[in-house]
Amino acid sequence: MTDTYRSVVLARRPQGSPRPDDFAVVTNAMRPANDGEVVIQNLYASLDAGFRNWMDEGSTDHILPEMPIGAPVMGLTLGRVVESRHQGFQVGELLMARLAWEEYSITDATDFFVRVPTDLDCPLSWHLGILGDTGLSAYFGLSDIGRPKSGETVVISAAGGAVGSVAGPIAKVFGARTVGIAGGAEKCRRLVDDLGYDAAVDRYGDVDAQLAEACPNGIDVYFDNVSGPLLENVLARITPGARIVLCGAVATYNETAPLPGPSNLFQLVTNHARMEGFMTHFNHDRYPDARRQLLDWIAEGRLHSTEYMLEGIENVGIAFCDLFAGRNVGKTIVRLADA
Amino acid sequence: MTDTYRSVVLARRPQGSPRPDDFAVVTNAMRPANDGEVVIQNLYASLDAGFRNWMDEGSTDHILPEMPIGAPVMGLTLGRVVESRHQGFQVGELLMARLAWEEYSITDATDFFVRVPTDLDCPLSWHLGILGDTGLSAYFGLSDIGRPKSGETVVISAAGGAVGSVAGPIAKVFGARTVGIAGGAEKCRRLVDDLGYDAAVDRYGDVDAQLAEACPNGIDVYFDNVSGPLLENVLARITPGARIVLCGAVATYNETAPLPGPSNLFQLVTNHARMEGFMTHFNHDRYPDARRQLLDWIAEGRLHSTEYMLEGIENVGIAFCDLFAGRNVGKTIVRLADA
Repeated sequence: MTDTYRSVVLARRPQGSPRPDDFAVVTNAMRPANDGEVVIQNLYASLDAGFRNWMDEGSTDHILPEMPIGAPVMGLTLGRVVESRHQGFQVGELLMARLAWEEYSITDATDFFVRVPTDLDCPLSWHLGILGDTGLSAYFGLSDIGRPKSGETVVISAAGGAVGSVAGPIAKVFGARTVGIAGGAEKCRRLVDDLGYDAAVDRYGDVDAQLAEACPNGIDVYFDNVSGPLLENVLARITPGARIVLCGAVATYNETAPLPGPSNLFQLVTNHARMEGFMTHFNHDRYPDARRQLLDWIAEGRLHSTEYMLEGIENVGIAFCDLFAGRNVGKTIVRLADA
Repeated sequence: MTDTYRSVVLARRPQGSPRPDDFAVVTNAMRPANDGEVVIQNLYASLDAGFRNWMDEGSTDHILPEMPIGAPVMGLTLGRVVESRHQGFQVGELLMARLAWEEYSITDATDFFVRVPTDLDCPLSWHLGILGDTGLSAYFGLSDIGRPKSGETVVISAAGGAVGSVAGPIAKVFGARTVGIAGGAEKCRRLVDDLGYDAAVDRYGDVDAQLAEACPNGIDVYFDNVSGPLLENVLARITPGARIVLCGAVATYNETAPLPGPSNLFQLVTNHARMEGFMTHFNHDRYPDARRQLLDWIAEGRLHSTEYMLEGIENVGIAFCDLFAGRNVGKTIVRLADA
């Protein structure tokens, strides 16, 4: 065991988009586990925009308390138990947990531990990405709500992100035509060339004109990963019976005042259309079947894992900032140690 | 047959809420029907807020063209064929049609004729109200989308209107607790005393505080007849799995610029909740069964027809204005002639 380990702490509260110096790396002395605790060596950190919420003062939801200044930043990690004084967990077990951005975690918060499935033959990092909450969000959002039919047009926002990079190919499995929205020409190129989208819309350009061209028959399904103004552009072009999947709200995490919603919700009435939100983890019982389905599609070559992987604890804050700057394509992960 | 008949024409385009002098009554010479035409004596005019849209210049939907200044105002009527030179329609038949506000209509627009069901024993005016598009909107919106369960809380906006006055009692049939939103203390009193709502919220008061008190367990179903700012108040209190039925948009018909939507649509995500719009007439095949269900509930005393009925062609414009001023409770109808 190591004598010291490093953590990333919240140096100050981000204003708007997080910046690298909102975070700082500190070194801690290792200590043995107390009764009921385990020591986990974190192998991978998953970077998820949603955690931005809890960096604000007085965040009001009930999932996590606001993160204190100077304390390790909370996130999702995949790690291995290296010491256990908890009878439920054995040394060597692989876990995913809501733990801090640190090389080792000493914790009794075992309620939040989820064992890594041992029956799936795949890289460990996939459990945080294509087979984790983000990949499963794409799967459940499309299977349960979007339900694209063959020949329909599916538009996906944040199309190159952790969810979008999986949702696009899944929509193709359903037989749909896919149009991805992302920021910038280079990212749009990658949507088509690397992720297999049929067309791309640059959100920094004239979104209405690009959507009109990319969706000549209207929009049957919108998989919304960002919330914010794009929804209004999309609503203007929905088809009768359209389904809008609300999956995330990257566009709003940095806002200090809530953004107004779309002014054309009445489009839902005239098109007898539906908008539905969901939280992936409410489908927890269905994770094993969903993971097998995703692995089958990967084996068939219809889906592949795309990761934006950085290395080392000193890059965790940077990777988080990259997420908001849109520098990632695919799931953003930092590898903290050799598995 | 009469020598002359009166029509209500659009005297000028309403600015915001319509006013009585936006309309004028003119007298026309009667003429015989030409080949392919029928002459209909209109017995009842149905007043429906949606027609406000087509009074604006350049209204953009494809249902009706914009109404010309000086031309008879389009609406929904129930009338009797008094002369026919169309082989599909016989003198004496009762029809509902998208016709103008006038005592007689001479028209070949028979595509828009719907025969009044002859197998139902009820007042004729009910076919424009509780058994017409508005009553059926309440029925389909709750049966298909809202689906209230026993003990759930259903909030209904424009609760005293043509749709709301039917939706409240239907939600009670489903076993729900009903909370109606309407404008003013007197109307709120009538929601509870006359329409059977369990509680009322005055939209001119502190809506948040009243909703908190009236919905201590949150809002499971929202039947939205108005669109506009109330939706944001409601979204703040929805329960997990909530359903929001989008049925109309009275609040927005008078606006010259679109109103922003709710800033808290993310509530749909965290509550895995659904918002769905619908157009009643898409369910046309199901009207006969739905009408029988409504009549059964009326026979059982669980539902009753509430009408705000004025008399005479000179009151049609006034009745339309009353709708926007919220003076009606129940379905607004003008009786034009003895049946």
